[in-house]
Amino acid sequence: MKILILNGPNLNLLGTREPEVYGSRTLEDLNIYIRDYFKKTELEFVQSNHEGELIDQIQKAEGSYEGIVLNAGALTHYSYAIRDAIAAVSLPVMEVHLSNVAAREDFRRNSVIAPVVQGSISGLGAYGYVLAVRAIAHQAIHKG
Amino acid sequence: MKILILNGPNLNLLGTREPEVYGSRTLEDLNIYIRDYFKKTELEFVQSNHEGELIDQIQKAEGSYEGIVLNAGALTHYSYAIRDAIAAVSLPVMEVHLSNVAAREDFRRNSVIAPVVQGSISGLGAYGYVLAVRAIAHQAIHKG
Amino acid sequence: MKILILNGPNLNLLGTREPEVYGSRTLEDLNIYIRDYFKKTELEFVQSNHEGELIDQIQKAEGSYEGIVLNAGALTHYSYAIRDAIAAVSLPVMEVHLSNVAAREDFRRNSVIAPVVQGSISGLGAYGYVLAVRAIAHQAIHKG
Amino acid sequence: MKILILNGPNLNLLGTREPEVYGSRTLEDLNIYIRDYFKKTELEFVQSNHEGELIDQIQKAEGSYEGIVLNAGALTHYSYAIRDAIAAVSLPVMEVHLSNVAAREDFRRNSVIAPVVQGSISGLGAYGYVLAVRAIAHQAIHKG
Amino acid sequence: MKILILNGPNLNLLGTREPEVYGSRTLEDLNIYIRDYFKKTELEFVQSNHEGELIDQIQKAEGSYEGIVLNAGALTHYSYAIRDAIAAVSLPVMEVHLSNVAAREDFRRNSVIAPVVQGSISGLGAYGYVLAVRAIAHQAIHKG
Amino acid sequence: MKILILNGPNLNLLGTREPEVYGSRTLEDLNIYIRDYFKKTELEFVQSNHEGELIDQIQKAEGSYEGIVLNAGALTHYSYAIRDAIAAVSLPVMEVHLSNVAAREDFRRNSVIAPVVQGSISGLGAYGYVLAVRAIAHQAIHKG
Amino acid sequence: MKILILNGPNLNLLGTREPEVYGSRTLEDLNIYIRDYFKKTELEFVQSNHEGELIDQIQKAEGSYEGIVLNAGALTHYSYAIRDAIAAVSLPVMEVHLSNVAAREDFRRNSVIAPVVQGSISGLGAYGYVLAVRAIAHQAIHKG
Amino acid sequence: MKILILNGPNLNLLGTREPEVYGSRTLEDLNIYIRDYFKKTELEFVQSNHEGELIDQIQKAEGSYEGIVLNAGALTHYSYAIRDAIAAVSLPVMEVHLSNVAAREDFRRNSVIAPVVQGSISGLGAYGYVLAVRAIAHQAIHKG
Amino acid sequence: MKILILNGPNLNLLGTREPEVYGSRTLEDLNIYIRDYFKKTELEFVQSNHEGELIDQIQKAEGSYEGIVLNAGALTHYSYAIRDAIAAVSLPVMEVHLSNVAAREDFRRNSVIAPVVQGSISGLGAYGYVLAVRAIAHQAIHKG
Amino acid sequence: MKILILNGPNLNLLGTREPEVYGSRTLEDLNIYIRDYFKKTELEFVQSNHEGELIDQIQKAEGSYEGIVLNAGALTHYSYAIRDAIAAVSLPVMEVHLSNVAAREDFRRNSVIAPVVQGSISGLGAYGYVLAVRAIAHQAIHKG
Amino acid sequence: MKILILNGPNLNLLGTREPEVYGSRTLEDLNIYIRDYFKKTELEFVQSNHEGELIDQIQKAEGSYEGIVLNAGALTHYSYAIRDAIAAVSLPVMEVHLSNVAAREDFRRNSVIAPVVQGSISGLGAYGYVLAVRAIAHQAIHKG
Amino acid sequence: MKILILNGPNLNLLGTREPEVYGSRTLEDLNIYIRDYFKKTELEFVQSNHEGELIDQIQKAEGSYEGIVLNAGALTHYSYAIRDAIAAVSLPVMEVHLSNVAAREDFRRNSVIAPVVQGSISGLGAYGYVLAVRAIAHQAIHKG
Repeated sequence: MKILILNGPNLNLLGTREPEVYGSRTLEDLNIYIRDYFKKTELEFVQSNHEGELIDQIQKAEGSYEGIVLNAGALTHYSYAIRDAIAAVSLPVMEVHLSNVAAREDFRRNSVIAPVVQGSISGLGAYGYVLAVRAIAHQAIHKG
Repeated sequence: MKILILNGPNLNLLGTREPEVYGSRTLEDLNIYIRDYFKKTELEFVQSNHEGELIDQIQKAEGSYEGIVLNAGALTHYSYAIRDAIAAVSLPVMEVHLSNVAAREDFRRNSVIAPVVQGSISGLGAYGYVLAVRAIAHQAIHKG
Repeated sequence: MKILILNGPNLNLLGTREPEVYGSRTLEDLNIYIRDYFKKTELEFVQSNHEGELIDQIQKAEGSYEGIVLNAGALTHYSYAIRDAIAAVSLPVMEVHLSNVAAREDFRRNSVIAPVVQGSISGLGAYGYVLAVRAIAHQAIHKG
Repeated sequence: MKILILNGPNLNLLGTREPEVYGSRTLEDLNIYIRDYFKKTELEFVQSNHEGELIDQIQKAEGSYEGIVLNAGALTHYSYAIRDAIAAVSLPVMEVHLSNVAAREDFRRNSVIAPVVQGSISGLGAYGYVLAVRAIAHQAIHKG
Repeated sequence: MKILILNGPNLNLLGTREPEVYGSRTLEDLNIYIRDYFKKTELEFVQSNHEGELIDQIQKAEGSYEGIVLNAGALTHYSYAIRDAIAAVSLPVMEVHLSNVAAREDFRRNSVIAPVVQGSISGLGAYGYVLAVRAIAHQAIHKG
Repeated sequence: MKILILNGPNLNLLGTREPEVYGSRTLEDLNIYIRDYFKKTELEFVQSNHEGELIDQIQKAEGSYEGIVLNAGALTHYSYAIRDAIAAVSLPVMEVHLSNVAAREDFRRNSVIAPVVQGSISGLGAYGYVLAVRAIAHQAIHKG
Repeated sequence: MKILILNGPNLNLLGTREPEVYGSRTLEDLNIYIRDYFKKTELEFVQSNHEGELIDQIQKAEGSYEGIVLNAGALTHYSYAIRDAIAAVSLPVMEVHLSNVAAREDFRRNSVIAPVVQGSISGLGAYGYVLAVRAIAHQAIHKG
Repeated sequence: MKILILNGPNLNLLGTREPEVYGSRTLEDLNIYIRDYFKKTELEFVQSNHEGELIDQIQKAEGSYEGIVLNAGALTHYSYAIRDAIAAVSLPVMEVHLSNVAAREDFRRNSVIAPVVQGSISGLGAYGYVLAVRAIAHQAIHKG
Repeated sequence: MKILILNGPNLNLLGTREPEVYGSRTLEDLNIYIRDYFKKTELEFVQSNHEGELIDQIQKAEGSYEGIVLNAGALTHYSYAIRDAIAAVSLPVMEVHLSNVAAREDFRRNSVIAPVVQGSISGLGAYGYVLAVRAIAHQAIHKG
Repeated sequence: MKILILNGPNLNLLGTREPEVYGSRTLEDLNIYIRDYFKKTELEFVQSNHEGELIDQIQKAEGSYEGIVLNAGALTHYSYAIRDAIAAVSLPVMEVHLSNVAAREDFRRNSVIAPVVQGSISGLGAYGYVLAVRAIAHQAIHKG
Repeated sequence: MKILILNGPNLNLLGTREPEVYGSRTLEDLNIYIRDYFKKTELEFVQSNHEGELIDQIQKAEGSYEGIVLNAGALTHYSYAIRDAIAAVSLPVMEVHLSNVAAREDFRRNSVIAPVVQGSISGLGAYGYVLAVRAIAHQAIHKG
Repeated sequence: MKILILNGPNLNLLGTREPEVYGSRTLEDLNIYIRDYFKKTELEFVQSNHEGELIDQIQKAEGSYEGIVLNAGALTHYSYAIRDAIAAVSLPVMEVHLSNVAAREDFRRNSVIAPVVQGSISGLGAYGYVLAVRAIAHQAIHKG
C-alpha cells in the first residue's frame, strides 16, 4: 500500500514558524515521526508552496497511491482549484491540520476543500497525520 | 484508563435513521464495534436527547475519565452551553461526526464547540470514534 | 387512527400568556376544542418545556401514531435536534403555529424544522390544529 | 358565501410542470377537486400570469367575496405590490403553497406577503386549498 | 407646459386603504387637490396596478410632456425595469411618496429607482405632489 | 426549425436608450441583423414591457418552437416568475445580454433565471443573439 | 412665521467644494437665493461643522421657530445623536440634500435621521430648500 | 418579599471553571455572599443545566416571588424558549452576567432575552447579583 | 470619594423628550434623585451634546475622580472616539442607560463602548444611576 | 488569425473528472472538436494548473494573438491576479464555462474575472468554445 | 513650505494611553521628534478631541499649508464629515496611524477617509509621520 | 544592509498596464528610480506572477536580507498563503501599493496580509517604495 503525504505552503518552515502554535518539530522530523508508525505502508512525502504543483500531485496520485493525506496550509481557505482536483480524482483524500483551526482566526474556520474530502482531522498535531494514514488504510482493507 | 463515549440527540436511532447517510449499524452495534478495538481501555457509553443531561455528563466526567469522545449531534450547531461545559472541564474532549458534515446542509458547517475541543474527526463513520479514542489514549500516555 | 398533538415550551401558559397574541383559551381548553372536532380519531396530547422530552416523544411516536401535529414553540427557530428527530422518523409531521409568525419579530420568521415537515399551517389560532389533524387523516386515508 | 381562489404565474401549467414537485393534476382538475369539497360555498377560480391582474382581482374582491385563497406563485417572493393590495383590503386572505416551499430553493423561503395574510398553509398539495377555504368559512361563521 | 402624474399599484385605493397612513382623501380628491394649485400647467393623471403599463407610460411620455411625477408604490422597492425606463428617457422624473417611507417597514427604505430620478420628495402627503410639479416647472423654466 | 426571440422591458427603446451602452441600432435593426444570419431558420420576434406577457409567451412557445432566445432586460434580476416559466417548459432557453452585465451596477450581477436556462451569453452585443440561435440549432441537430 | 435653515459640516464650502456636484453658488449665495422666495417668512441661517452645535440648535429652536430645514451633510449617515435631537423636539424638521444622494456612494444611501423627520427632499439643488420651507409653512397654516 | 435567583448551565462549576474570568468563588460562596446583603428579603437559589428546567422555574415563580434574578449562562445567546417564558410571566426579571460579556467572544454580545427583561447588569461579578436584587426590591416598593 | 456623572447628547431634554420612554423627570430632577442616595460621596454632574466635550471630560477625570458613570446617549452606538477615551484612562467607567435599549430600535442594540467599560446597567431608569454609583464605590472600597 | 485557447486547473482531467457534469470527452478530444470548426483560424491550446503560468500566458499573448478564449476553472472564483492580467492586456478575452455554473454550488456563481472580459458564454459544453472563437473572429473582422 | 500635522481624539494622551500599543512618547515628544527631521519645513501641530474642530482646521488649511498629515484617531472609522472636508479641499492629505490598525480590532480595519486621501501610512510609529511629511514635500517639489 | 524588493503578479507590465492608474514608468524604470535613492543599501529586485515563487522568496529572504518591501499585487486580497509566509519569517515586511487602493474597486479594500506586516504605505506611486525602504532601514538602525 502506498499513501501520499502532501503538505502545502509554509509547512516546510515547521519548527521555526510560530513554534507556540506548530511545535518545534521540523517537517523532516514530522515525516520520520509518521513513518515510524507504519512499517508495512509505503509513504511518499511531498511539500510545495505552489498551488499548481499541489494540483499536479493530486492528479498524478491516481493510480499510484491508495490515498492522500493532505494539509493544504492556508490554501485550505480559498483554493477552489485544489477542491476541484480532489473532487476529480477517485482516491480518498484525508484533510489534516496540525492545530485546531476552529480556535484561531476567523478566516481559518472555513475550509473550501472540506466538502469534497473523505474525512477531516484537526487539532492533534503530528499524531493527526498518523490517524489519517490509518483511516485510509482502514478503508482500503475494508473495501478490498 | 477510562474514556467516556458521549452521544447526543437522535444517535439512539442509528440504523433506522437515514441509513444512506449514517449506515445500518445501530448504536448498540456501534458501541460493540468500538469496544472491540480496545481491550485494555475501559469505555463507558452514554446517549441522551437532552442537552442538560449531556452537560451534566461532561461535568461529572472530570476526575472519573481520561477524556471524552463527543458526538453532540445537531446540538453541535447551536449549544453554546455544551461549549461552555467543555471549556469548563480540564479533560480532553474529541469531537466526532459520523458523516462529512461539511458536505451536507449549510447549518451543519458551523460547529460552535469546535473552538474549545482538543481535536475534531469527521467523515469516517464508526471508525472515527476508534481514532478519537486512540487520540485521547495517545495524549494521556505522552503526557504521563 | 391515533394522532399525537405535541406542544413545546410555554404553550402550557396559554390563556395567561400574552392573550392579545394567543387568545384567552388555556391549553386544556385548546385540547378540548380540538377533540370536539374528531369523534373517531384518537388524539393524544403532550406538552413539555424540555427539548429532549419533545425529541423522545417524536422518536417514540413511530409505530404508535399515524402522525404528529407539532407546535414546537420557540424551539422552532433553533432546535436542529428536533429537526433531526423529525427527519429520522417516517411519520408525517404537521407544523402548526397559533399566530401568524411572519408578522411578528424577525427571529420568528425562520423555522429550522420547516424543511423536514409534511406541511405547515400558521395564523389560524386553535383552528389550525384542527386543520392539521385533518391533513394527517386525509393523507393516511389516501395512502391506505 | 362566496370565496375567490386566486392563482398566480405558471399555475396554469399544473400537471405538465415539474410533476414530481406539483403532481399530475391540471389546474382544471385542481379546481374540480376543491369544488367537490364545498357544496354550499360558491367558489370563483381565477388564474393570471400578470402581477397587475392579480392586484386588480384582490382589489375588486372587496364587497363581492368573504375571502381570498391566494397562491401567488413565484410572485410570493418579491411582489411587495401584491402585499400592499392584501393589506389594503379588509378581506381575510389565506396564503397557500402546493409544495413545502421551505424544503426547496433558498429564495422560496421568504414570503413577502406572509406578514399581511390571515394565515398560511403549505406542503399539502391540492388539499391545502380545501383547508384554506375551510379556514375562511370558519372565520366568517364565528365572526357573524 | 404638460406634466404627467403617474401613480402605481394600489394608489387607486387611496381613501379606503390604511387611512391612518395615507389619509382619507381618494385618488380623485388627490388629483383635484393638485390641479387646484396649477392653473397654467396641464396635468395628466394616470394610475395603473401593472408594472408593464407604467413602463409603457414612461416611454410614451417622451416628447409629449415636460416631466413626470412618479409614485411607483411598492414597485419602488424592486422594479429595476421601471428604473431602466426612467434612465432610458430624457425627461426629468420626480419620485414622490405620500408617507415618510423611511419610518416604516425595512423593505420600504430602499428605492431602486432613486439613483436615476431627478429628485425625491417623501413624507408630505398630497402636498408632496404639488412640490414635485413645481420642481419640474422650475427646471423647465430655468433651462429654457 | 422555428425559434422565438423574446425581448423584455425597455428593449423597444434600443437605439435611443443609453447608446454608449447599447449601441445606436434600434430593435428593428437588431431583428434584421439577426435574421440575415439565418436563411433556413424561422425566427419570430416578440418584445414586451409586461412580465406577465413574457410568461405567457414562454408558456405558449412549447410545441411551436425549438427554443427561445431570451433577453429579459431588468426582469432578469428579480422575476422568479419568469424563472419558474422557463423551468416549467421543456424547450431550451438561451439567456442573452447585449452588454457585459458583470461590469455594470451590482444589481445586474445577479440573474435569477441563470440557474434554469440552457446557457448564457453576454457582452457581445447583437452578435450574442446570433450565437444563441446557433447554440439552440446546434443542440436540436445533435439531439435529433 | 420663523423658520431655521440649519446646515451641517462642509456646507460652508459651497461654491468651492466639488462644484460639479454642488454647483458654484456659495452658502451666502444660497441663503440669499432662498430668502428671495420668502418675503413674509423670517428665515434664520446657521451653519456649523460641529455635531454638538447642531444638536444645541435643534433643541433651542423649540418655541422660537415654526420648523427646521436641515441639511446635516455627512452627519446624515451616522449621527444618531442628531436623530435623537429631532425626535425629542416637537417641531417639524424637513431633511434636504442638494444632490441626489441615492445616485452617489453607497454610504450616502442610508440616512439615520430620515425615520424621524417630517419629510425629505433631495436632488433639487438650492430649490430643494425653497420647497422645504414651503412644506413647513404649508403645514403650519393647515394646522393653525 | 421573596426573590428567585436562577442560574443556568455551568454556573454550578463556579470557582473551578476558568477562574481568571469568573473568579475563585464557588456557586455556594456566591449564594452566601448575596444573602449576606439582604437580611429581610427571602432569597431562593436554583441552578440547572437544563433549559426546560429553567423554563419550568420561571413559570412557577409567578405568584410565589416578587421577581427573578436570572443568569441564563450560555443559553442567553440562543434560547428563544426562555425568552418566551420571561415574556409570558408578569414578574420583573433582571438579567445578570458576572463578566462583561461585551468584551468577550462575538457570540456573547447578543442576548436573545435582553429585549424582554426589566433590566440588565453585567461586568460586576457577584456584586451584580446584589444590585439586581436591589433593583427588584426597589421596584416592588415603589409600585406598592 | 468623588464620582463623575456624565450625560451625553439630548439627556438635557429629559422630562420633555418622549416621556413615555424616558419618564417625566428632568435632568435636574434626576441629579437630585441620585444625590439623595449618597450623603458621603461627592457627585459631579456634567451634560454635553458635544462628543469632543465628553472626551475631554473623561480624560480630565483621571486623578480627580474615583470613577465615571456614563450615559453616552446615542453616541453609545458609534463613537469609537469615546471608546478610545475610556480605554485610555485607568478609571472604572460604568455604562448606564435609562431604558432597556435591547427592546428598542436595532441600532440601539450595539454599544461600541461596552467592550471597554467596567460594567453596564440598563432598563432601570434613574435607579440605574444609583446602582452604578454603588458599583464604583463598592469596587473602590474592596480594592483600597 | 491566431487565437489562444487557455484552460486552467483540472481541465486536463476532462473525460475522467465528473463525467456527468463535464462529459466523457478528454481535453485532447475537446481541442480536436474545436479545431474542426475552424479551418482558416490558427488555434493554440494551452492548459495549466498554475495560476502564475496562466498569467504569464495572458501577458505573452499580446502581440501574438487576436484574442484569448479562457476557461480559468476554479480560479475564476478568486484569482484577482488573473483578472488584473486580463485588464492589463488589450486583447479581447472571452470567458467560457462548460457547465451552467449558475446552477451549481454557490461559490461558482461569482466570477471575479467577468467584469473585465469581453463577453461570457456558459452552459453549452464544448460548443461554447466554438462560439467564443467565433465571437473573437467576428469582432476582429468588424474592427479591421 | 508649511505643513499641518493634525491629530484627532485621544492622541493628546500619548505616553500614558496603552503604552504597549502606542509607546511611551507623549504628544509633545512626538512633535519634537518629527520637527527634528525637518529643518527647512515649517510644521504646525494641532490636536483636538472635537470632530468639528478638525473639520474647521482642514478647511482653514487651504491656502496656508502645502498639505496635511492627519491622524484622525478613532474618527477614522466613522467620520464621513471629515472625509467630506478632505474631499472638499485641494490640499494633499496623508493619512497616518501609529500602530498597524489592520492587526487590531475589526472596526479599525475600515477607514472611511482612506478613499479620499493622497496616501496612507500605518504601523511605523512616530516615524510614519516623518515619512508622511516627506511624501507631501516630495509631491510639492515634483509638481512645482 | 540588504533589502529585497518583491513585486507580485502583473507588476512586470508596469508602463503598459492602465497607465492612468499606474503611470508610464516600467518596472525596470521603477527599480532604477528606487536604487537612485539608496547608495549604501543593497537592493535586490524580484518579480513573479507565481504565488508559490513569492512564498519561496519570502522564506529564503530570512538570513540574507534585513527586510522585504512587498507589493503583492492582486494576491494581496486573497493569498492567505503569502500571509502565513510573512508571519513565519522574522524579517520586517513593508506592504506597498502604487495606487490608493482604498479609492478603487471594493475587493481592493481588503488586504489579507496587512495584519501581519510591519507597516503599510499606499497611494504614493514609486516614492512609496522609497519610503518603505527607509522605514526598514530606520528600524534596523534603531534596533541595532
